[in-house]
Amino acid sequence: MATKKEIEEFMRADFPQAKCIVEAVGEQSATVRHTIGFDELRPGGTVSGPVLMTVADCALYVAILGEIGIVSLAVTTSLTINFMRKPSSTKDIIGKCTLLKIGKSLVVGEVSLYSEGDEKAVAHVVGTYSIPKSN
Amino acid sequence: MATKKEIEEFMRADFPQAKCIVEAVGEQSATVRHTIGFDELRPGGTVSGPVLMTVADCALYVAILGEIGIVSLAVTTSLTINFMRKPSSTKDIIGKCTLLKIGKSLVVGEVSLYSEGDEKAVAHVVGTYSIPKSN
Amino acid sequence: MATKKEIEEFMRADFPQAKCIVEAVGEQSATVRHTIGFDELRPGGTVSGPVLMTVADCALYVAILGEIGIVSLAVTTSLTINFMRKPSSTKDIIGKCTLLKIGKSLVVGEVSLYSEGDEKAVAHVVGTYSIPKSN
Amino acid sequence: MATKKEIEEFMRADFPQAKCIVEAVGEQSATVRHTIGFDELRPGGTVSGPVLMTVADCALYVAILGEIGIVSLAVTTSLTINFMRKPSSTKDIIGKCTLLKIGKSLVVGEVSLYSEGDEKAVAHVVGTYSIPKSN
Repeated sequence: MATKKEIEEFMRADFPQAKCIVEAVGEQSATVRHTIGFDELRPGGTVSGPVLMTVADCALYVAILGEIGIVSLAVTTSLTINFMRKPSSTKDIIGKCTLLKIGKSLVVGEVSLYSEGDEKAVAHVVGTYSIPKSN
Repeated sequence: MATKKEIEEFMRADFPQAKCIVEAVGEQSATVRHTIGFDELRPGGTVSGPVLMTVADCALYVAILGEIGIVSLAVTTSLTINFMRKPSSTKDIIGKCTLLKIGKSLVVGEVSLYSEGDEKAVAHVVGTYSIPKSN
Repeated sequence: MATKKEIEEFMRADFPQAKCIVEAVGEQSATVRHTIGFDELRPGGTVSGPVLMTVADCALYVAILGEIGIVSLAVTTSLTINFMRKPSSTKDIIGKCTLLKIGKSLVVGEVSLYSEGDEKAVAHVVGTYSIPKSN
Repeated sequence: MATKKEIEEFMRADFPQAKCIVEAVGEQSATVRHTIGFDELRPGGTVSGPVLMTVADCALYVAILGEIGIVSLAVTTSLTINFMRKPSSTKDIIGKCTLLKIGKSLVVGEVSLYSEGDEKAVAHVVGTYSIPKSN
């Protein structure tokens, strides 16, 4: 298992360009935040789908690191996203991940994505990560 | 909106061969039960994947009927299932659905499937239903 | 690798209740057939979703056996199905699988499902199988 | 229906920041290209998942525009991506989309993503778009 601080240090060192901020991690879950600015928007004033996917992927990764420790080689193998509501162009995106299964080689988790302060999720993601065998 | 009793009567009349039992419905959610016998098992003594999908689809449908009323033409448009643990061959399968979005033409929901009495889900489903325009 | 005959014998011995008929296998692909009768239909005279999923799962499994040999412990880990057209109630369902990736521990494949004789697919499936490490 | 030129003009006007280049469109399919530079890479020298999703989404959108004409309000409703191989850090990503169903309100398509010049896809996507009713 890895603490919030250990994960932050690892992310800073290994993923310096990532804009995801770890808000909370532990108990097979994680919450991350992604600030939204011009780069994250698409015409019509909404957050682009790939940004939502980035946040979901980050939330999953952080939840996994929190559970099994710093495993830099864990990779996303599949991801299903349902877009449900138009995200706000002026609010951060918050991703809340819950791990559903932590297997030896596969981890499954779900992520709800929110415009900060809104109760209803803008998108929902289910994703799987492959964990290298040596771990 | 439709009550548990209205949904049970509709299911009995329109889907007489369905083995899904409505346990609870309301507040954008539903719980259903499927008894498990020889027909539902596959070699190795586990519940077959299509049976799990059947339960998930039923839970979604019941939750939708509970929310928007008896709409016989609602149809599944997509479904993603992640198999996570081996279901028990001797316990009923319980499906718990939560609707994530109730749009005019599309409904999105997720379902966790359990072997009765177990805390950890055997499978997780996200599905979408298309609602006919006249409704 | 396993031949069509070897796969048929294995299926008959290990999955005696399976209704899937192997039509062709090889070159990282497989074609299977499922006869459609009263048991496979649902109200409205169409093939039920779980039957379509069964055919897709079978096509994937046969394609995998054809590629890596008889591996009885291979299990489906995830499956995404999109329902696209109403299947005929009087025609067999044909499933055509193409493997997209054959990894050491994960196999990914896609399956198009047809009412026999129709050019347009009734449903499309992408699925992943986990292959036990000892293989 | 819209031609390659009409789609290019529409994309330039409405999605000026999009980096997707239309290579071909027509017959319910499309091919797009995305150049890969520093912004698209992640540590380890591979193309990031969100970039792959961007290319897939663009290929789907272009194929839809080619089929039903310029419909700016078409929106992605769901997307399932399977990551299969590590993309090259020095080659463009090519997305090849085939539409599977063109319904009145929903379009389903699949996209194979390649590092240019490689035969084996790095990722596979199935996505659905919702088409506004007035169209």
